[in-house]
Amino acid sequence: MTFSIAHLGPTGTHTETAALAYTQWLQKSQGESSILCPYPSIAQTLQAVVEQNADFGVVPVENSTEGSVTITLDTLWQLDEVQIQKALVLPITHTLLSHADSLEQIQTVYSHPQALAQCQKALEGYLPHVQLIPTASTIEAVRYVTQEPNQPYGAIASSRAAHLYNLPILISSLNDYPDNCTRFWVIGLEATNSGRYLSLGFTTPRNEPGALVRPLSVFAQREINLTRIESRPTKRSLGEYLFFLDIEGSVMQPHVQAALNDLPQYTEVLKIFGNYDVLSIKEDESLPIG
Amino acid sequence: MTFSIAHLGPTGTHTETAALAYTQWLQKSQGESSILCPYPSIAQTLQAVVEQNADFGVVPVENSTEGSVTITLDTLWQLDEVQIQKALVLPITHTLLSHADSLEQIQTVYSHPQALAQCQKALEGYLPHVQLIPTASTIEAVRYVTQEPNQPYGAIASSRAAHLYNLPILISSLNDYPDNCTRFWVIGLEATNSGRYLSLGFTTPRNEPGALVRPLSVFAQREINLTRIESRPTKRSLGEYLFFLDIEGSVMQPHVQAALNDLPQYTEVLKIFGNYDVLSIKEDESLPIG
Repeated sequence: MTFSIAHLGPTGTHTETAALAYTQWLQKSQGESSILCPYPSIAQTLQAVVEQNADFGVVPVENSTEGSVTITLDTLWQLDEVQIQKALVLPITHTLLSHADSLEQIQTVYSHPQALAQCQKALEGYLPHVQLIPTASTIEAVRYVTQEPNQPYGAIASSRAAHLYNLPILISSLNDYPDNCTRFWVIGLEATNSGRYLSLGFTTPRNEPGALVRPLSVFAQREINLTRIESRPTKRSLGEYLFFLDIEGSVMQPHVQAALNDLPQYTEVLKIFGNYDVLSIKEDESLPIG
Repeated sequence: MTFSIAHLGPTGTHTETAALAYTQWLQKSQGESSILCPYPSIAQTLQAVVEQNADFGVVPVENSTEGSVTITLDTLWQLDEVQIQKALVLPITHTLLSHADSLEQIQTVYSHPQALAQCQKALEGYLPHVQLIPTASTIEAVRYVTQEPNQPYGAIASSRAAHLYNLPILISSLNDYPDNCTRFWVIGLEATNSGRYLSLGFTTPRNEPGALVRPLSVFAQREINLTRIESRPTKRSLGEYLFFLDIEGSVMQPHVQAALNDLPQYTEVLKIFGNYDVLSIKEDESLPIG
């Protein structure tokens, strides 16, 4: 069979690079081919999975410099059926693309707000006086540059985007932190029930001392490592939160199962988002161009 | 004396409304007058306090719909001297401003990304096909509309901005959630050491089960309520975090002091950001216009 994989598009985004790596893994490990289906937003990518227009959806979860991609967490909390199949970790190198002959000519730089934020100090250093204009994706930024080849516009995008859209690279590594990485989740409808990591979300009874410590202690008592905690507003009123946890463990392990059985007595709403492994992606250069 | 109060500008932003409320409180409670000093960014607002170009700085911390203002937390973590003087809670009502005669005419809506996000569903309902363009502040959005009075542009900003810049209001309440509020912090250089809330930040030893539970338990054991926890990436590598806590308590209370004395054995870097009270602001309508 051929899997269809929804992702935040268009062609050339970092999410597409992560989705491509997942298709290669599917081919290698299961002998299955797949096709990519770009969507204009993260919410629409997840909705495509829920409505079974795609078998899987690839969405960014967090970046090592800028933190959580909150729209992914907020949308996931509202969907009931979806399960994380796998995490993908992709090193992100931002490059400056432009038709300009020199940096001095560039007056305007376009990119996705996450990319602009991840290159903030470098931009202040190289291009202190340019106007920064946020776009819906790094590829939308590239399009501003390609559509006006006589204008000295700049775009921040991947080196893969430079190859795909045939644009010169003026600066090959623009990110402020060299170990800049983004973690993605592959979302599907079936639970995998195996893998090294488990993600869940919950709300707690309000305004009680220890309301958050109790659910966390359920894991700590059993020596289960908590690798991440993220709070998000419930959006109902200021000071009400929901929590997202990632733990090291599988539902197949008795001590993890015992912790999950204990948890509901300390939570109001509890959702298990899935049990999965992590695939680390080496270099986006190894991926097919075009 | 006259205090100078730095804030994210320009005139008409929600942060300026919060800063104005603080000047009124200073006048009423201490008989002191103050002047407002708008700055182009949150980082520059905080830097003005550190460099003693302003006595206080007012910065947004979190919104009930969109969550933390991460640049405020990230900048605060890097500054050593600053202390929170007070928290301000401001109800935020977004309005749609335009010279257009009807909604159907509007093809482009400008606003700050936080405002666009807080009105996401309303925009999909009222204006499903418009292009949304992010700006550096809600007032920059207003300027696009005022500069081109013959274009059917829209801006999302406060009703105070509509009065200040003399723009018609097409929709008077555009936010998706009626109880939309933003919490601000007033930052200064002196510790207040009193007040109902205490904010702190810390890093923990890595990859140990219970690394986060231990510092939280220090408060739970003493029945000290944790009102908020926020994690942020250290930016060094994926999976390394620092944590921001708000607790209910004052350093003048012995059990809080005991908890703070216990805390360093479970943390790596620990910073106390201040002890402060909350000022709830009723209506921005009561504030001076212009």
